Amino acid sequence: MSSETKFLLPEDRIPRAWYNIISDMPEPPAAVLHPGTGQPIGPDDLAPLFPMALIGQEVSAEREIEIPEPVREVYHLWRPAPLFRARRLEQTLDTPAHIYYKYEGVSPSGSHKPNTAVAQAFYNKEEGTKRLITETGAGQWGSSLAFAGNLFGLPVDVYMVRISYDQKPYRRSAMETYGARCVASPSTETESGRAILAETPDSTGSLGIAISEAVEVAAQNDDAKYALGSVLNHVLLHQTVIGLEAIEQMEMAGDDPDVIIGCAGGGSNFAGLAFPFLGQQFRGGRSRRYVAVEPVSCPTMTKGSYAYDFGDTAHLTPLVKMHTLGSGFVPPGFHAGGLRYHGMSPLVSGLVHGGLVEAEAYQQTECFAAGVEFARAEGIIPAPESTHAIKATFEEAARCKQEGVTRTILFNLSGHGHFDMQAYTDYFAGDLTDQPHDEGAMHEALEKLPEVAAG
Amino acid sequence: MSSETKFLLPEDRIPRAWYNIISDMPEPPAAVLHPGTGQPIGPDDLAPLFPMALIGQEVSAEREIEIPEPVREVYHLWRPAPLFRARRLEQTLDTPAHIYYKYEGVSPSGSHKPNTAVAQAFYNKEEGTKRLITETGAGQWGSSLAFAGNLFGLPVDVYMVRISYDQKPYRRSAMETYGARCVASPSTETESGRAILAETPDSTGSLGIAISEAVEVAAQNDDAKYALGSVLNHVLLHQTVIGLEAIEQMEMAGDDPDVIIGCAGGGSNFAGLAFPFLGQQFRGGRSRRYVAVEPVSCPTMTKGSYAYDFGDTAHLTPLVKMHTLGSGFVPPGFHAGGLRYHGMSPLVSGLVHGGLVEAEAYQQTECFAAGVEFARAEGIIPAPESTHAIKATFEEAARCKQEGVTRTILFNLSGHGHFDMQAYTDYFAGDLTDQPHDEGAMHEALEKLPEVAAG
Repeated sequence: MSSETKFLLPEDRIPRAWYNIISDMPEPPAAVLHPGTGQPIGPDDLAPLFPMALIGQEVSAEREIEIPEPVREVYHLWRPAPLFRARRLEQTLDTPAHIYYKYEGVSPSGSHKPNTAVAQAFYNKEEGTKRLITETGAGQWGSSLAFAGNLFGLPVDVYMVRISYDQKPYRRSAMETYGARCVASPSTETESGRAILAETPDSTGSLGIAISEAVEVAAQNDDAKYALGSVLNHVLLHQTVIGLEAIEQMEMAGDDPDVIIGCAGGGSNFAGLAFPFLGQQFRGGRSRRYVAVEPVSCPTMTKGSYAYDFGDTAHLTPLVKMHTLGSGFVPPGFHAGGLRYHGMSPLVSGLVHGGLVEAEAYQQTECFAAGVEFARAEGIIPAPESTHAIKATFEEAARCKQEGVTRTILFNLSGHGHFDMQAYTDYFAGDLTDQPHDEGAMHEALEKLPEVAAG
Repeated sequence: MSSETKFLLPEDRIPRAWYNIISDMPEPPAAVLHPGTGQPIGPDDLAPLFPMALIGQEVSAEREIEIPEPVREVYHLWRPAPLFRARRLEQTLDTPAHIYYKYEGVSPSGSHKPNTAVAQAFYNKEEGTKRLITETGAGQWGSSLAFAGNLFGLPVDVYMVRISYDQKPYRRSAMETYGARCVASPSTETESGRAILAETPDSTGSLGIAISEAVEVAAQNDDAKYALGSVLNHVLLHQTVIGLEAIEQMEMAGDDPDVIIGCAGGGSNFAGLAFPFLGQQFRGGRSRRYVAVEPVSCPTMTKGSYAYDFGDTAHLTPLVKMHTLGSGFVPPGFHAGGLRYHGMSPLVSGLVHGGLVEAEAYQQTECFAAGVEFARAEGIIPAPESTHAIKATFEEAARCKQEGVTRTILFNLSGHGHFDMQAYTDYFAGDLTDQPHDEGAMHEALEKLPEVAAG
């Protein structure tokens, strides 16, 4: 085991191919269904929304998908991302555990999101898309797509969840700095938005609503396409650069993770780190524990149903089999905006359902407490989303101490919190409260799950 | 010349010694004078404020000063910092110039300031200091000292210039995340602060006032010491890790800078990049142009006097020979808070006075325009201070185009702007205006320059 604390790869170790976990999974993922017919959809059904290259990646069974050179060139701006041994944190926690974290906050927008934003902008540009439409929760995705679209000369429109639009005006400025247009969602620009506002004029919005707005605009404009920052197979695919680098870095460290942890809103940063390791396991390598962490107040994996549901509130998307709280469920306005989604990536959901991935849920105040302790030990102020992975790591480190055993923990520090300091301000002022899971609202939303034939 | 865009050093190339430019300067710096006697001060005069190790570095004539291992160990968290070739920016500007930038925003607090904060916290801890007192303008320095103090178990009190305290609440949250206490300056906690408030109850504050408060508290408390984030020789010394790394990285790039540019508030990020190159020149190497950039509305080097003056408003500090607008000059409340200082590092001032360093001044709106263009080309959103270096780079690149010549420009991107998005919000809203230099206020302040015998 190395005595170093930071493990850096040379630039020529930026991965040349993404890793496609579907190629190694024991069973193929459940089919995606057409909302009208209930039958499996084909590429043509998705063509109004995505370029063909991404539709192809969504269903590919190839193990390795080559990263185009112009995408790798942009990755050079911040990749390979560092992997740290959290030695100071281990001391603070007085744990025998070895704690490592992969740090994705070194990207220009401060999170892991550009890994896929750059790829999506590239393929859209290649296929003649003139404008990209998307939604964003906390703003990490919106600012990342704004950054990427700008690099490839594509204008970007972002529907930003109202609560984050108000809480995080600085993410909006970041999007505008990159030349994007940012609209609070629900907005009056779309039918979906107007319908929500008619019913709930003071709606705080949700990712489900914002997705409806973005999908509606993209579907109605021939030269515009839609881009999604998580959930879909091709998005998780692009994020595997995280885990592919981490595998090499853990080898540099002379250590091997027993437990791999990531926060999960739509699932992409968790999957990006975990899937390349899980792939080794599928191909006969050692088994490890994989932990996806979510907020108690939006407990998709820990309390939701594993069922076919819509990805959005207005039911414009296809039906996917996933963990869901019901597409009508609107989570409370907590600060980890990136974790406020009613659904979960179908790939991650399938693995949770199959018992290969564990799910845990924590309250926001205990997550912020862990985040502050992490910052004081390691120097980096974590994004509110990432504090969920940190809290789960603390719990695991405490179990190691209690049991008197050394386990190696690797977690994904998906972003820094420099845009989210209002959350820390509220935390220090005692203005953050824990929000219980709204069982009633969930059951009401789950009762409206679509009935489907296939599955 | 390499075709790469990013130049990374391996970790074992983190410098092992700081470079002390005094050892190579043709003339020794002007003496620092006691404000009471007008005579050169000795180490004992500074002992109430600084640990002896730093006082020794302030006057050392050694060329290399070893970096203590615990300081290097913390540097590992983010150093070596990357150096980029700005290829996309060169295309945008359509210039034959080669543009490189050293990026210091990768540190936990997002700027170059931790390079010295960590060293200062270390030496204070070594010598038994129990508490650190400092001031901060935009908050980069305060959050960096908070970060460093916390790592070495030292509580930190920060007097933060009122205008920044109000404009940048998120820097305050960052300081609190690291466990520091942050007070708006002028405050009612000190005699200096109360005197200012009695005269100007709605004072926006200034670095000069905040320094008075911090120095007063440190001088009156035996177990507390003062820490300064720029201006002094030992601070500039610690920042030379920037230039030492950049020299190696420019060699990796197979290129050599003709012009070296940095923004200058107190002078430390400019000096950190420039001094190691300038040292080569002093020792018989090739001559280069060095450009220090300041705001038109706080034009210390371009309009101020080169004279003995106090470092603070309440006249508690020794007298140093430097470019100054007069210690009573309060700059307007523009967004580049780190550039709102009436004085300038004596070392940088001496070099400007001697014609070895050029000074330029720009208006804030043209700097933000350059910053936005930079972000759209290179992806990184620059701190408002750093946009001054970018603007000067644009001017130089335009001259290259006009003259049809290729020159190699290297500038210091001293920090990212993720904490400063309010400034970008104001810029996009058209709420930023150019602020003329207040000649009258400067002349009034300069008339009160102290009379001194030595010089």
